[in-house]
Amino acid sequence: MKIYTKTGDKGDTSLIYGARVPKNHPRVEAYGTLDEANAAIGTAVSLLTAENESFIKSLQRVQTLLFHAGSELATPADKEVHWKLTPQHTEMLEKEVDQWAAELPALKQFILPGGCPSAAALHQARTIVRRAERLIVSFETEVRTEEVLRFVNRLSDYLFTAARYANLLHDTDEVLLAPDI
Amino acid sequence: MKIYTKTGDKGDTSLIYGARVPKNHPRVEAYGTLDEANAAIGTAVSLLTAENESFIKSLQRVQTLLFHAGSELATPADKEVHWKLTPQHTEMLEKEVDQWAAELPALKQFILPGGCPSAAALHQARTIVRRAERLIVSFETEVRTEEVLRFVNRLSDYLFTAARYANLLHDTDEVLLAPDI
Amino acid sequence: MKIYTKTGDKGDTSLIYGARVPKNHPRVEAYGTLDEANAAIGTAVSLLTAENESFIKSLQRVQTLLFHAGSELATPADKEVHWKLTPQHTEMLEKEVDQWAAELPALKQFILPGGCPSAAALHQARTIVRRAERLIVSFETEVRTEEVLRFVNRLSDYLFTAARYANLLHDTDEVLLAPDI
Ligand code: B12
Ligand code: B12
Ligand code: B12
Ligand SMILES: C[C@H]1O[C@@H](n2cnc3c(N)ncnc32)[C@H](O)[C@@H]1O
Ligand SMILES: C[C@H]1O[C@@H](n2cnc3c(N)ncnc32)[C@H](O)[C@@H]1O
Ligand SMILES: C[C@H]1O[C@@H](n2cnc3c(N)ncnc32)[C@H](O)[C@@H]1O
Ligand SMILES: [Mg+2]
Ligand SMILES: [Mg+2]
Ligand SMILES: [Mg+2]
Repeated sequence: MKIYTKTGDKGDTSLIYGARVPKNHPRVEAYGTLDEANAAIGTAVSLLTAENESFIKSLQRVQTLLFHAGSELATPADKEVHWKLTPQHTEMLEKEVDQWAAELPALKQFILPGGCPSAAALHQARTIVRRAERLIVSFETEVRTEEVLRFVNRLSDYLFTAARYANLLHDTDEVLLAPDI
Repeated sequence: MKIYTKTGDKGDTSLIYGARVPKNHPRVEAYGTLDEANAAIGTAVSLLTAENESFIKSLQRVQTLLFHAGSELATPADKEVHWKLTPQHTEMLEKEVDQWAAELPALKQFILPGGCPSAAALHQARTIVRRAERLIVSFETEVRTEEVLRFVNRLSDYLFTAARYANLLHDTDEVLLAPDI
Repeated sequence: MKIYTKTGDKGDTSLIYGARVPKNHPRVEAYGTLDEANAAIGTAVSLLTAENESFIKSLQRVQTLLFHAGSELATPADKEVHWKLTPQHTEMLEKEVDQWAAELPALKQFILPGGCPSAAALHQARTIVRRAERLIVSFETEVRTEEVLRFVNRLSDYLFTAARYANLLHDTDEVLLAPDI
């Protein structure tokens, strides 16, 4: 089967279970943006090396969970979701944040996004996840996907801390915001 | 002539032929987002080396065609388009997808976006092109730019396959989605 | 204090001075997108080396000023802004553009976004800043933040010229658009 099916050439596409919707449907906007965040995490992973194995594993688990989130968003409200996020998935993020935070200095100021290339990519992923969160919120008025919203909120804090941790792994100094320039 | 003209400081700008519109006009949103996708392809190209010459040429041809698409979107509906996309441009994308696909294993599952840095960048470009497609769809209710829509739909499949091909060129394994983690 | 406060799990958040708003509020969209542009600049900086010290300093000053812009957008219209952008900040951008432009060949054609990796990242930042500008424009109908709009308009020209300058620093040829392919 070819990758291009041409069925979407007129601007509509299908959700899981097959309902046709325009490509700018709020659900498509939301999972499309999670796909974009997923790709940004992929860039971060591509910049890490084998020594960072457990860190890579953690990020790839998140990439997988973004497909779960996407699957939930791509399923019409009245149908069963195949891959559902649970509170345990969000707690998993929290546990990792706590572990990394224990090795990092406490923050009392913003930091300039950046550092080593993988940290910079994680900051980009963080801001794209937050963009997806804003889209899900607008769409939330329509139907509840509460756990996706919690997961995505926690994910941006996970990615912020992951960026800091990537800099620690690569001995790169953080640059704190110095507002008076 | 200076690059900054200050004429847009109040929030409006001009289309081709000079009509003034606010910067958040649907047409400006659409070609502005294709510009963003173009920049992401530029990142992918920047990560390839001279050995990948024909692959680079293909991506730069796509960058050029994104200016054609932009030009069409920036032209008011009642005026002649200078650089018009034709069905042949879309077919060109299809031919390249077919050629790359012939060298790649068949897929029966999603893949985690990423791999080598250039493949990761191509996945990012893919998701931005899809964002542009969603914007063009909303704007399509206003006026027809049918070939642009077909081209952009095919382009995300081209970029997906290009990402896979970049990994093949760089001997990087694809990571298939393993939903049960 | 933990980085994750869980207070935003239901989809609302707070502006400076504490007013609660939904996360898809136009102000949050605007400063969230400037945060995304900031992260893209962080990627560009991460790809530069110590020899480019004064160039890095310039980009980090811009990152800092994006926090000023964000602070202004995050402050309700009837409250005092803590970190305010002034016309001098916009003029600072203009002065740097003029200095770089003096070393660069004049342009009479578009260029394909890309070049060395840092230049490519600067083009990505440029297009994200322009996306933020489009969001601020929509929101401008609601309340005036005139200097932010001027700053952001100039910033995309600064980033365009910075991308060209990064290529000059790294001896990378610019690729001019050749529309007839
Ligand atoms: C939602 C969705 C997405 C979401 C992701 C899914 C998620 N859960 O978040 C997003 C937006 C990320 C996405 C992206 C893409 N998708 Co999609 N997607 C779908 C959709 C609507 C549902 C899939 C799903 O989640 N099913 C739920 C699971 C539980 O059910 P399932 O049926 O067992 O699903 C499996 C298969 O669909 C499968 N699969 C089987 N064959 C193939 C072949 C290919 C090429 C791919 C990528 C997947 C795939 O993977 C799923 C997981 O086990 C289907 C169409 C449909 N209505 O089924 C298209 C579909 C699977 N997608 C398709 C394509 C082409 C893509 C993209 C390549 C598009 C692009 N150019 O970017 C990318 C690939 C991304 C990647 N990283 O691999 C095509 C595949 C066509 C083919 N050749 O077989 C489909 C069939 C749509 C179509 N055009 O008809 N997609
Ligand atoms: C649409 C458009 C875009 C689209 C791209 C075009 C497309 N087809 O997709 C996008 C959004 C990508 C874009 C981006 C930019 N643009 Co523009 N764009 C235009 C616009 C509205 C039409 C251009 C067009 O496509 N014409 C159709 C062709 C067939 O006609 P043409 O007249 O022969 O067009 C040629 C010239 O405009 C030319 N050109 C001549 N001198 C210069 C100088 C510069 C610096 C550039 C970049 C181009 C350029 O390139 C065209 C191709 O041959 C013009 C304004 C206008 N109304 O003409 C501005 C314009 C060309 N852009 C301008 C600028 C500054 C830019 C950016 C630098 C803005 C930024 N900071 O990001 C970037 C540069 C991107 C790049 N990669 O080089 C300025 C150039 C000012 C100058 N110094 O000469 C113009 C004149 C607008 C203005 N401010 O008055 N743009
Ligand atoms: C606007 C805003 C942003 C803007 C940036 C600010 C700007 N000016 O553009 C954006 C969207 C970029 C942002 C991002 C983040 N923010 Co914020 N932000 C705010 C907000 C609403 C106002 C901050 C501000 O500008 N104050 C104006 C200055 C003049 O007043 P100030 O009170 O002295 O502000 C200082 C402190 O807030 C401070 N600070 C003190 N302790 C901490 C701790 C942390 C972890 C951070 C990041 C900052 C920080 O830095 C400010 C500068 O001096 C506050 C909540 C609030 N209502 O105060 C949250 C707040 C500071 N942010 C918070 C967080 C968690 C983040 C992010 C990590 C979220 C994420 N996952 O992406 C990122 C970090 C980005 C970075 N690069 O460091 C948390 C910090 C919680 C904590 N542990 O202390 C707060 C308190 C919100 C909350 N959850 O309650 N934010
Ligand atoms: C750190 C600050 O970022 C803002 N905030 C919270 N969620 C988002 C989001 N999804 N996108 C952009 N900004 C957000 C709030 O103002 C918060 O206090
Ligand atoms: C692979 C799946 O991606 C979705 N899809 C199709 N086009 C877009 C787009 N522009 N943006 C986001 N998602 C899209 C459809 O649901 C399709 O089946
Ligand atoms: C160079 C051209 O880019 C367009 N333009 C001006 N501002 C923006 C923006 N924020 N986003 C996208 N396009 C823009 C105008 O059409 C201008 O002429
Ligand atoms: Mg949050
Ligand atoms: Mg498609
Ligand atoms: Mg401008």
